[in-house]
Amino acid sequence: MEIAILGGTGALGRGLALRFGRDTDHSLVVGSRDRSRAVDAAAAYRDEFAARGATPTVEGRENVDAVAEADVAIAAVPAAVAADAVAAVGDVLPRDAILVSPVVPLRPTSGGLQYDPPEAGSATAVVAASAPEEVPVVGAFHGLPAGRLSDLDRPLDLDTLVVGDDPDARASIAALAEEVGGLRALDAGPLANAPAVESVTALLVTLDRQGEVDEPGVRFE
Amino acid sequence: MEIAILGGTGALGRGLALRFGRDTDHSLVVGSRDRSRAVDAAAAYRDEFAARGATPTVEGRENVDAVAEADVAIAAVPAAVAADAVAAVGDVLPRDAILVSPVVPLRPTSGGLQYDPPEAGSATAVVAASAPEEVPVVGAFHGLPAGRLSDLDRPLDLDTLVVGDDPDARASIAALAEEVGGLRALDAGPLANAPAVESVTALLVTLDRQGEVDEPGVRFE
Repeated sequence: MEIAILGGTGALGRGLALRFGRDTDHSLVVGSRDRSRAVDAAAAYRDEFAARGATPTVEGRENVDAVAEADVAIAAVPAAVAADAVAAVGDVLPRDAILVSPVVPLRPTSGGLQYDPPEAGSATAVVAASAPEEVPVVGAFHGLPAGRLSDLDRPLDLDTLVVGDDPDARASIAALAEEVGGLRALDAGPLANAPAVESVTALLVTLDRQGEVDEPGVRFE
Repeated sequence: MEIAILGGTGALGRGLALRFGRDTDHSLVVGSRDRSRAVDAAAAYRDEFAARGATPTVEGRENVDAVAEADVAIAAVPAAVAADAVAAVGDVLPRDAILVSPVVPLRPTSGGLQYDPPEAGSATAVVAASAPEEVPVVGAFHGLPAGRLSDLDRPLDLDTLVVGDDPDARASIAALAEEVGGLRALDAGPLANAPAVESVTALLVTLDRQGEVDEPGVRFE
């Protein structure tokens, strides 16, 4: 399948691209608002793969061109621009694609960071409201430690939670996630559970800042 | 030290009492609104310990009597009654005690359970507002799987997050938590982080109901 990563030049986008590229046989399209940055990032990712003997197809395109033939589009963009970024690709996103939101809205507090859910209840709900009605939206890959993802020598051994109202789409994204070595996908149920899923990221950042765990991820066991 | 567990006859209270009783040398006081239930529960816990060759001091008392000499008082009570339960013991709670809130307010949704923070921001904040001003309040032990806690043959290998505005009180409760075998305490910082800490429990219950993980706890790694 073809996986488009909007914001594929950012930290999480880079980490996901590198893991998908090494561990799966899917085609990758790195999206950015700026075409030349996308092209440069795709070239850099190809170099990383080549150094490891992997040869996935990786292209760089402007976001709106990146999703045109996507089976899965991942909106790896900051919360503040997620609605606009998704709306901007709505016309071209194939109606049989699945749109994935790893978006987590956070705001600083006196001591750390707090989950800052939007009016719609969750970032996943915001993305769903901005997406074409026919396209199922799944929340996944929240709070994965980008540095660890991008360092392909580090094992993950982490969970990701998959949430959304379309059970088939959740199952597809869970299966895709589990193609990544060391990543386990857990079904967290319908969109109504997205706030609980997204809010874990606030804790991860807090624990990292407190010096308790370095670049933590989460395991449910 | 003396540990009083308000609601010590409930599932979490029982689990904590059994683990503290087996793994530490602290005195335990099991509290309940109903004195005879507290006395019965304490006797049952003593039987469990005796069967394992442990001989901790365990007494059962009405909640208000349970905390009178407590060094640590744990409000293992439902969210709906937490404020009242804490207020009811405020006059007798020693001013040098630490009050611990494992309370998590949840409400059902279409698909599962959602964290339902009170106006004050978190259950920990509600408990703090109901406690005597001099007594530091620490959130800890949220969402620990009560069945696993109560089955002393099962290893835990889980994390608990410790949150609150008094760093010394957090450190004391973290040290106490780590006396329990297989439990690791992580410092989650000030009270402002309590919503993120408490909300993880909604996910744990959801994952259990979804059949994804049986009686899950959480590890940050």
